[in-house]
Amino acid sequence: MDPLASRPIHGGNLVWAASLANCSPSAILDFSASINPLGPPASAIAALQSHLGDLKAYPDPQYCELRSALGEFHHIPPEYILPGNGAAELLTWACRDLAALPATCVVTPAFSDYQRALKAFDATVLACPLDPLAHGQWDLARALSIAPTRHPAGKAIGLLLNNPHNPTGSLLLSDLLSAHLNHYAVVVVDEAFMDFLPPDEQQSVLDLVVEHPNLVVLRSLTKFYSLPGLRLGYAIAHPDRLKRWQEWRDPWSVNALAAAVGAVIVQDTTFQQQTWQWLATAKPLLFQGLSDLPGLQPDLGAANFLLVRSKRSVVQLQTELLKQHQVLIRDCVSFPALGDRYFRVAIRTEAENQRLLDGLSQILSNGKEG
Amino acid sequence: MDPLASRPIHGGNLVWAASLANCSPSAILDFSASINPLGPPASAIAALQSHLGDLKAYPDPQYCELRSALGEFHHIPPEYILPGNGAAELLTWACRDLAALPATCVVTPAFSDYQRALKAFDATVLACPLDPLAHGQWDLARALSIAPTRHPAGKAIGLLLNNPHNPTGSLLLSDLLSAHLNHYAVVVVDEAFMDFLPPDEQQSVLDLVVEHPNLVVLRSLTKFYSLPGLRLGYAIAHPDRLKRWQEWRDPWSVNALAAAVGAVIVQDTTFQQQTWQWLATAKPLLFQGLSDLPGLQPDLGAANFLLVRSKRSVVQLQTELLKQHQVLIRDCVSFPALGDRYFRVAIRTEAENQRLLDGLSQILSNGKEG
Repeated sequence: MDPLASRPIHGGNLVWAASLANCSPSAILDFSASINPLGPPASAIAALQSHLGDLKAYPDPQYCELRSALGEFHHIPPEYILPGNGAAELLTWACRDLAALPATCVVTPAFSDYQRALKAFDATVLACPLDPLAHGQWDLARALSIAPTRHPAGKAIGLLLNNPHNPTGSLLLSDLLSAHLNHYAVVVVDEAFMDFLPPDEQQSVLDLVVEHPNLVVLRSLTKFYSLPGLRLGYAIAHPDRLKRWQEWRDPWSVNALAAAVGAVIVQDTTFQQQTWQWLATAKPLLFQGLSDLPGLQPDLGAANFLLVRSKRSVVQLQTELLKQHQVLIRDCVSFPALGDRYFRVAIRTEAENQRLLDGLSQILSNGKEG
Repeated sequence: MDPLASRPIHGGNLVWAASLANCSPSAILDFSASINPLGPPASAIAALQSHLGDLKAYPDPQYCELRSALGEFHHIPPEYILPGNGAAELLTWACRDLAALPATCVVTPAFSDYQRALKAFDATVLACPLDPLAHGQWDLARALSIAPTRHPAGKAIGLLLNNPHNPTGSLLLSDLLSAHLNHYAVVVVDEAFMDFLPPDEQQSVLDLVVEHPNLVVLRSLTKFYSLPGLRLGYAIAHPDRLKRWQEWRDPWSVNALAAAVGAVIVQDTTFQQQTWQWLATAKPLLFQGLSDLPGLQPDLGAANFLLVRSKRSVVQLQTELLKQHQVLIRDCVSFPALGDRYFRVAIRTEAENQRLLDGLSQILSNGKEG
């Protein structure tokens, strides 16, 4: 394998990074996947251990316990909730719905898996670009205000966006988004990072699903709870839509351990509080540290990651960080609107963030090396 | 929930059974899902425990280690192998390929998830029935010899069958199946139960995949190794086909624990030998025990389950077994060709099989009760 030729289009590809850094995947300090560094919570591992016996049986195809726990957590009736094998599995079916429309408006730059899922069902995509020209002007609200809502033939189209936006961290107020809901045939809002915001700052539209059968909200449980290997997400949408998706996919999409763990972690308020507290401190510190480095300009977004503009080639920077420091950052080459002058970093513990800053500082102060 | 109204279309639905038996799901003795009662093997649990740290990272989207282990196990190049979130996930994509053909011939009675996956992509289905009229004449070879291979318009169609056949246990010789491969545009062979046959009796066609780009073999790892809650199966097919499926589905379909466990269990030759030895003894004993009961006629199939014809209503028998003995058998109501006069039972340990026989004996000797 030529590691440079096989550059991954997603963060968190430690096998690829390790082959470049010439170390084991576990030796990589990963800033490329935006995962909570405090987890997984002890409650998750305890739930997993106590449910090992569940592996001998098929999961309940209705996932009653998990749906019920999620319903209580969000104060939404369980029939509006469908768990999935990661939010990415549910994105597949959401995009099948979008592909049935004349077109879908996608806010760009966009998480590259959107492209995969839309293409899987031959969807027609209309890009709705955030303005990359003015620093700090990643403005979801403005992008949406000028986005198309109808196909040239006059039919209503779909809308796919994430909020907060990945990779810029731009946050759209729920009131503003709700005003747009009636303009589209289907609106899919990927809220994969919404839970990183403290409750009083969250801008989720999941409450609106009951009133808006054209609204789909996707949520992840594996970023906040540090369990991306376990695979668990859920969709909140009208029961008729979720029933249709269940008839498309196999009956046991969520593994038994994920189902058991998911029902427990949403009740772990201690871990939730710790995470919000850590992020409130660690984010401004990392933002300041990056701002102080020559040639780097971070954006202060709403999520648990920072998008950083770089005067130097990011592919080169990424390679040097990997080879010299076993530190992995997320290049933005797979976001065509961003290219080689942006990278994204997860916010990790203060000590880990310092290791990133030290590595970057060393490479950047060496000027033209590497 | 009305348990009778919500009768499941798959075996192994312990939540449903428990609500009918008025006990906890774990108290049900489950003969309805055809799972190896000897497992999971200790090697699986050890692999799972030692890989709990993997949950913090995304799985390798290429699943290199798992593919490599499966490739060695089958002496097939790893690029011909695609792991999935259970064989059921891969069935979804196989049926999308079949749905692109003018029609697909499905051997019936068929595993009810075939219907789901074919319908998901609006496939045109032609039934190819096994003859249910003559006892012991579940003959896959004969069914295939008279099956259609072309659409009325003249175009080649697809074929979907499982071997050994579920629920009859009928086994098709690989030489015979291979003679049919060139008659169809795509042939999907679900070998979910093939590994229960001792190696010298197996009739897999997976070796033929390299020579036949139109052949897809689906395998499960969770029946033989008793891990249906973990979700793990794989497809063996031409790399171009598998690459297309990967572009349809999300990148991390197999959870990290399943990926780690799968690479280990296929090397557990001790567990494999134990399973073949257990089945060689337990199957004829259960067959004889069922034959000796009034009104029951089992078929001696090739797999780890037995299909049984019953003079009495099976729905009634199933309910009584659940309520009186917490024993769950698989009714065949969801197989339209079979209906209420057949049930399927997994072969379990000799003591558990005896508990089934005792329960059945008690109910059947009570005649008209219940």
